Amino acid sequence: MSGLVRDLEGLLEARRVFAQQEDLLAYTNDATHRRVFPEAVVQPLTTSEVGKVLEYANRKRIPVVPRGAGTGLSGGATPVPGSLVLDMKRMRQILEVDQRNLTATLECGVVTQEFHKAVERLGLFYPPDPQSMSVCTIGGNVATRAGGPRGVKYGTTKDYVLGIEAVLPDGEVIHYGGKSVKMSSGYDLARLFTGSEGTLGVITKVTMKLLTLPPYRQSMVAVFGELDAAAETVSAIIAAGAVPSGLELLTKSSIETLEAFIPLGLPKDAEAFLLIELDGHEGKVHEDAGRIIAICEAHGVRETKIAQSAAEAERMWFARRALFPATARLAPNVLIEDATVNRTEVPTMVREIKAIAERLQITIGVSGHVGDGNLHPGILTDKSNPELMQRAEAAMGEIAKKALELGGTLSGEHGIGTLKAPYLEWEFGREGVQLMRRIKAAFDPNGIMNPGKIGAEWGGANV
Amino acid sequence: MSGLVRDLEGLLEARRVFAQQEDLLAYTNDATHRRVFPEAVVQPLTTSEVGKVLEYANRKRIPVVPRGAGTGLSGGATPVPGSLVLDMKRMRQILEVDQRNLTATLECGVVTQEFHKAVERLGLFYPPDPQSMSVCTIGGNVATRAGGPRGVKYGTTKDYVLGIEAVLPDGEVIHYGGKSVKMSSGYDLARLFTGSEGTLGVITKVTMKLLTLPPYRQSMVAVFGELDAAAETVSAIIAAGAVPSGLELLTKSSIETLEAFIPLGLPKDAEAFLLIELDGHEGKVHEDAGRIIAICEAHGVRETKIAQSAAEAERMWFARRALFPATARLAPNVLIEDATVNRTEVPTMVREIKAIAERLQITIGVSGHVGDGNLHPGILTDKSNPELMQRAEAAMGEIAKKALELGGTLSGEHGIGTLKAPYLEWEFGREGVQLMRRIKAAFDPNGIMNPGKIGAEWGGANV
Repeated sequence: MSGLVRDLEGLLEARRVFAQQEDLLAYTNDATHRRVFPEAVVQPLTTSEVGKVLEYANRKRIPVVPRGAGTGLSGGATPVPGSLVLDMKRMRQILEVDQRNLTATLECGVVTQEFHKAVERLGLFYPPDPQSMSVCTIGGNVATRAGGPRGVKYGTTKDYVLGIEAVLPDGEVIHYGGKSVKMSSGYDLARLFTGSEGTLGVITKVTMKLLTLPPYRQSMVAVFGELDAAAETVSAIIAAGAVPSGLELLTKSSIETLEAFIPLGLPKDAEAFLLIELDGHEGKVHEDAGRIIAICEAHGVRETKIAQSAAEAERMWFARRALFPATARLAPNVLIEDATVNRTEVPTMVREIKAIAERLQITIGVSGHVGDGNLHPGILTDKSNPELMQRAEAAMGEIAKKALELGGTLSGEHGIGTLKAPYLEWEFGREGVQLMRRIKAAFDPNGIMNPGKIGAEWGGANV
Repeated sequence: MSGLVRDLEGLLEARRVFAQQEDLLAYTNDATHRRVFPEAVVQPLTTSEVGKVLEYANRKRIPVVPRGAGTGLSGGATPVPGSLVLDMKRMRQILEVDQRNLTATLECGVVTQEFHKAVERLGLFYPPDPQSMSVCTIGGNVATRAGGPRGVKYGTTKDYVLGIEAVLPDGEVIHYGGKSVKMSSGYDLARLFTGSEGTLGVITKVTMKLLTLPPYRQSMVAVFGELDAAAETVSAIIAAGAVPSGLELLTKSSIETLEAFIPLGLPKDAEAFLLIELDGHEGKVHEDAGRIIAICEAHGVRETKIAQSAAEAERMWFARRALFPATARLAPNVLIEDATVNRTEVPTMVREIKAIAERLQITIGVSGHVGDGNLHPGILTDKSNPELMQRAEAAMGEIAKKALELGGTLSGEHGIGTLKAPYLEWEFGREGVQLMRRIKAAFDPNGIMNPGKIGAEWGGANV
C-alpha cells in the first residue's frame, strides 16, 4: 500500500479510498476521449472530509481533480498523472426545498434530474436541462455553467446559483450568498466558482433559485427550405417577445444522421428544421404560437406543425435528444464543439463550419440551441488514427477562432477544460489570461486544483 | 499649479482637469454625509484616456476613486485624501441597441433613465430601476449591483450584464463576454467587476441584456391591520407563481412620515400597506390580480384596491417614491440601511429593527422592497451631533448583524462602500475576507483603486 493510500485512509473510511487500476479505470476520462490514470480516488461524504483531503493534498502538493458524474465534453474532469480524484457523487442530499422563498439548498453530488423531480413534485421548477441530466450532478453543472435547450428562455445554471459553500485548497470552507436574489456584498465568489471547473477549490453545497412550474406547454416544428430563412425567423421570434422555452435547430446533415439511426419521417430535403417549445400561461402560449406561425410564414416556411398531444410533443423532442447517440454511431469518436455566437450570426457560422469541414476533409454535423446561438458541431474522428485526430483538432480550433471573429465565445455551456485551453488567449488576450492566472493564484497558490484546465499551463503562484 | 495637475493636463485636455476647491466641492461625497476633498478630478472621454490616467496614477501610487453620478448610499464614491476622482459621466454614448439579439452596448456614464427611454422607444425593456434612476449612471449601477422595486420579478443590474470592458490599474484594457446569454469560458470577470465598487479597475463599457416591453401593467394596494399578515401574504403570492413586477411595503411609521409630507389619505391606523404592480400578458395579469386578491383575503386583508387608470396607478407609486424625500425632511441626515433577508424573515426583521430603535433611543423608519426581503430602514440622525451619530452608526451595525443572524446579507443593492466595510468579516468570516483581499491584489497590486471601500483596510499586495 502506497504512502498516499495509507494517508488517505487516515482521513476518511478505507472503503471510500480507491487505488487499484480496475477501480481507477472509470475515472480516467470524462466524456472526451483522452484517458489518464489518477493515483487514487476518494469519495468524501462531508464538507469536513473534503477539507481534510484538500489540506493534505495542498501540503503534499498533490494535484486534485474534482469530479461529478464525468459527463463533461471538454476534458474538465480528466485526471493528470499523479493526481487524486475527488468523486463528489456521494454528497447527494437535497438539504432543503424552501417553497416560500423559492430556493433549494443541496449538496454538489445531487443528480440534476433527481433535483428536477424533487422540486416539480412541489409545483416548482428548476429550468437548466443539460442533455446528460439523467446522470450529471448539480456540482458539475455549476462548475461548468451547464446549459441545455431551455437556456434560450431561462438562462443556464449560472443564472440560478444564489449561494455557494466551497472548500479552498488549504482546507478552509468559505460561504457566499444565501437565499436572497438581491445581494451586493463583497466580490461575487459564488459566481466566480460558477464555471471555475474545479480550478479554484471544491464546490460542496449550493443554494439555487427556483421558479414555479409553468402551467402549460406546447411544442411545434417548422421546416425551412433555406437555412438563412430559418435563422431570420429565430431572431424575429425572439425580437417579438414570444421567447420559446426551447428553440432548436436541426440542419440537413443532422436530419440525415437521425433518419439513418431511427426513421422518424423527417423531410430529408429540407435545409433546416426548427423545433420549438413554448411554456407558461395557457392564453399567452396560444397567442405566441399564433405569432410564431405568422412569423414563420412571413419568412417562407415550408410547413409548420403544432403537436396535438403530449405524446406527439415528446416524439418531436425525442428526435433532438437522439441526435447525440445517432451521431456517436457514425464514428469511433466525436468531438462536440460548443462555440457560441449571437443568434443573428448562426447562418454565417453554419456556412463557415461547412467550409472548414470541406477544407479539412472531415465530417461535421451541425445542430444546436439556435435560439441562443449555441451550436454543437459534432466532429467525427477516430482516436486510433492520429492523422484524422489532428485534422479533427484543427477543425475544433478553426471553429473556435471563427466564433470569436464573429463576436462569440469559446464555450456556451461545456466549459474550456483541456480541449479548448490552448485557445483561451484568443478570447481574452494575453492580459486577460494573465489576470485569470493571478485570480487562480489568489485561491490556489500551489496550483494543486485541477491543473491544466481552462488555462493549460497555469501552475503555482509565480505567474 | 501642482505637479499632479500639470501631469494630468499632459494626459487629457486641461478643461477636463479640475483642482480648484470650488470645483472639487461637488465631488467630496456621494449621497452619504462624510465629505473628503480629493486632490483633483478628471473627466475622461474615452477608454484610452482612462488607461493613461490609471497607468500614471498606478506608477505614482495615487489613489483613484471612480465615480458615476455620486448617488450611492454607502460611501462607495467618497474620495480619500490625496485621491484623484475619475468622473465617468462624460462617457455617455449608447453605442448600439441590437433589436435582433436583445442587447445594448453602452458607455458607463449613460444615465439609467435615458437608457430606459432609448430602449423603450424600440419596444424593449431594461428592468433595473434604482430610485435615483433619473440621474444615476449604468456604470455606477453595475459597480454597486443596483436594484430597485422591479428586482422581485426581474432581478437587479447584475442579472443583465452580459459583457464588460474595464481598465485595470496598470492601464491595460480587458474584455469579458459579449452578446451571448450563454457563456462558459474562463473566470467570469464581468460578474467580478459587477459589484466591485471601483476597487478592481474602472468599468468603461458594458453590454446589457434586454427584454421586450411587457404589453400590460396593473397596480393595486392592500392594507393590513397586522404586519405579519402582510408578510405572510407576500410569501404566499410569490409561492403561487403570481410574481409581481413590484411588491413594496410601507409600515405604519412610513405612512405617518408620508402623510406629514403630502397628505395622500393613506390609512394611518394600518400596520402595513402593500403596493403591488403586475406586468406582462394582459390575460395573465388579470388572472394573477384575482389570485392575489384571494390570497390577501385569505390572510385577513382589511382592504384591497386595483388602480382603475394609469393616473391612479401613478398616484399609488408616487407615495412610494416620495418616501425618501419625506423621510429626509425629518432630520438633517438619514442613514439608509440596505440589509436584506429572506422574504419570510421580514416580519422578524421589522420587529428587530423596532427593538433596536427603542434600545438606542433613535428614530428608524421601515419600508422597502418586501417582495425580495430588501428593507430600507431610514435611521434619522444629525452629523453635527456626534453622540447621536454614534447611536445611528451603532443602529446600523446592529441591523446588519441581525440581518446576518437571520441568514441575510449586509447589502441587497447599495453595496458595502465605507459605511458597511467594518462589518464585512461578519458576513464572510476572516477566511472569506482574506480571499477577497487576495483577489483585490490580483487586480490592483499597489492598492490604488478606491481604497477603503468594501474591505476597509485593504491596501497593497501584502495581504
